[in-house]
Amino acid sequence: MALIHYLARIPFDFGAISTLGEEIAALGIKRPLLVTDQGVANAGILQRALDAAKPGTPVVFDQTPENPTEYALETCLDIWRDKGCDGAIALGGGSPIDLAKAVALITSHGGKLADYNVKTGGSAGIGKVSPQIAIPTAAGTGAEVGRACVMSLKDGSKCVAVNLNMVADTVICDPELTLSLPPRLTAATGIDALSHGVETYCSPWDNPPAAALALDAARRAAKWLPVAVQDGQNRQARWEMMMAALMGGMCLQKALGSAHAMANPLGELHLHHGTLIGVVLPHVLRFNRDHAMAALSDLRAAMRVPEGTETHDWMLKFVGSLGLPTKLSEMGVSEQVLPEMAQKASKDHLSATNPRPADAEDYLALLRAAF
Amino acid sequence: MALIHYLARIPFDFGAISTLGEEIAALGIKRPLLVTDQGVANAGILQRALDAAKPGTPVVFDQTPENPTEYALETCLDIWRDKGCDGAIALGGGSPIDLAKAVALITSHGGKLADYNVKTGGSAGIGKVSPQIAIPTAAGTGAEVGRACVMSLKDGSKCVAVNLNMVADTVICDPELTLSLPPRLTAATGIDALSHGVETYCSPWDNPPAAALALDAARRAAKWLPVAVQDGQNRQARWEMMMAALMGGMCLQKALGSAHAMANPLGELHLHHGTLIGVVLPHVLRFNRDHAMAALSDLRAAMRVPEGTETHDWMLKFVGSLGLPTKLSEMGVSEQVLPEMAQKASKDHLSATNPRPADAEDYLALLRAAF
Repeated sequence: MALIHYLARIPFDFGAISTLGEEIAALGIKRPLLVTDQGVANAGILQRALDAAKPGTPVVFDQTPENPTEYALETCLDIWRDKGCDGAIALGGGSPIDLAKAVALITSHGGKLADYNVKTGGSAGIGKVSPQIAIPTAAGTGAEVGRACVMSLKDGSKCVAVNLNMVADTVICDPELTLSLPPRLTAATGIDALSHGVETYCSPWDNPPAAALALDAARRAAKWLPVAVQDGQNRQARWEMMMAALMGGMCLQKALGSAHAMANPLGELHLHHGTLIGVVLPHVLRFNRDHAMAALSDLRAAMRVPEGTETHDWMLKFVGSLGLPTKLSEMGVSEQVLPEMAQKASKDHLSATNPRPADAEDYLALLRAAF
Repeated sequence: MALIHYLARIPFDFGAISTLGEEIAALGIKRPLLVTDQGVANAGILQRALDAAKPGTPVVFDQTPENPTEYALETCLDIWRDKGCDGAIALGGGSPIDLAKAVALITSHGGKLADYNVKTGGSAGIGKVSPQIAIPTAAGTGAEVGRACVMSLKDGSKCVAVNLNMVADTVICDPELTLSLPPRLTAATGIDALSHGVETYCSPWDNPPAAALALDAARRAAKWLPVAVQDGQNRQARWEMMMAALMGGMCLQKALGSAHAMANPLGELHLHHGTLIGVVLPHVLRFNRDHAMAALSDLRAAMRVPEGTETHDWMLKFVGSLGLPTKLSEMGVSEQVLPEMAQKASKDHLSATNPRPADAEDYLALLRAAF
């Protein structure tokens, strides 16, 4: 089994979930709260985790909403207190992982999530949080090594708390858990992993270790995502995609770019993040074409883009070949919201690290092209 | 300035040393003990660090021996107690960095260094140690992000304590500090950085993030080490070599191989580690030739080894072109010690992760070829 240790301790391999009991004990957790959602429970993965947790007996919260809310957090905090929990386990995608992070934060620091909002400077004061284990069940966001927690507060506003002290102590990556992921979800999550490599590698911030990880994530995802979509039971493809997602999550500290700056506001329309990324990424590549030439040249070699084919044309075809939509209109986005989305994208903090500066007008043109 | 954050917080750029005062404050250190050696003090680098530490006023121990000893550790512990220190700063190469690590360990955990020996299982119990800042003054070992501390005990034995909790909290990488390094030392330390990339990339342990860092470290060092040796004032070459050394240190968790397995016992003869590595590495590449073919193919492309030239021939020429010795006999090694060195190399824990298994007989042949 690969044991990777940069931001977190990461046992990585088929069957890695079987180490859960040991990892709980290694962190000194006596009574874990396991945070997951109905999809994971219905797929039988929750039961597998509970079996692997033995002799540990986690208390389960399996009602994580699609996007985590302060209401769900309060329920978790009540359970934590009632049952005397002392550590959090996240099992699932970005939502359970974010929710478990918030639980680890508030149970160790007290107060409300809004106290730790990055916008008001509250995140800076975050110290070591309650022990946490993250177990991803898809290969995409890289949230398993994330340092941020995004949540809708009761007043409807979004709160983001960010601090390296919130990275999970232990991340268990078991590609076995992704074998049953249907092709569409495999594609939509996997394209997000690819985009992390691509956007990070193109961003002008200087962080060579992150760049090395980004290039490798892009190379791996470009090669193996089509295989994983085509044949979900291909174990090597599942392993490689889980690794691409992990490395994509690790490299994010070098920053992202305009594709994510657009996907963030569009996501507020309750659209799937990865699917959005797949739609907008080709257009961002065209927009950046002459502003990240060295980076794009390396990426083209890594992703094996044939000579004579433009990178954005290749990416558009790649996304389509995975069975994903390639237009916002196909996703049910109304043309009327584009100007508002363009405004929001231009103000998103991820826009600042795109290799080519983009204002609201640029974003409107990009969104129209992607419509 | 690049801010890199995997194993440690790493401000990295020319002039980064000027952040020392802020970094001391950020760790909450009131009274740092700065551990360095005479070479660093005489080169004026200690004074630069003391100026940068303001308003902090470190207590200085500038008598670190070439290889750190328990005697030096006890002196540091006495100073720490007398002056009421609460954090350690290492300034220099591997020796001050190792010594400061031991200070951070004992001042937080008590006892003797032997209590934490990895051989007796003592390392496993190491928790968070006293706050530490590491500032490398050469580009080579990567010890600045190291998790191990090697020290000679009073009884003459070597003690190695290893735990991720011993990685420095903050590493300040300032290539400016290496501008005055003479060509010979630039070459001898830099070849160590290159070897970390090469041996790690070839080792069979599975750790793709480390492999990505290793390949990039090898690429960077192969390109920029000759420039840094030729023209020490070339700022880009100094920046790139400090980055190669850092990434080399970060990738080590994927394990090393036979070149380090031989350099370890040979180093006990008081020979320079990097110089030894330069001598033995070409022969290890020849030995591994048919046992790491995919890895060597990637490395050849990264290091731009011309088609038709064997990797080991290229490396031998590369080492010689840096003005380094290419034979153990040139370093004053006596032929008589080779069998003992071969025995020790075969038992060194780094031998286990060489792509081709090597026993004492193999090592003797390698050492004779390198003699």
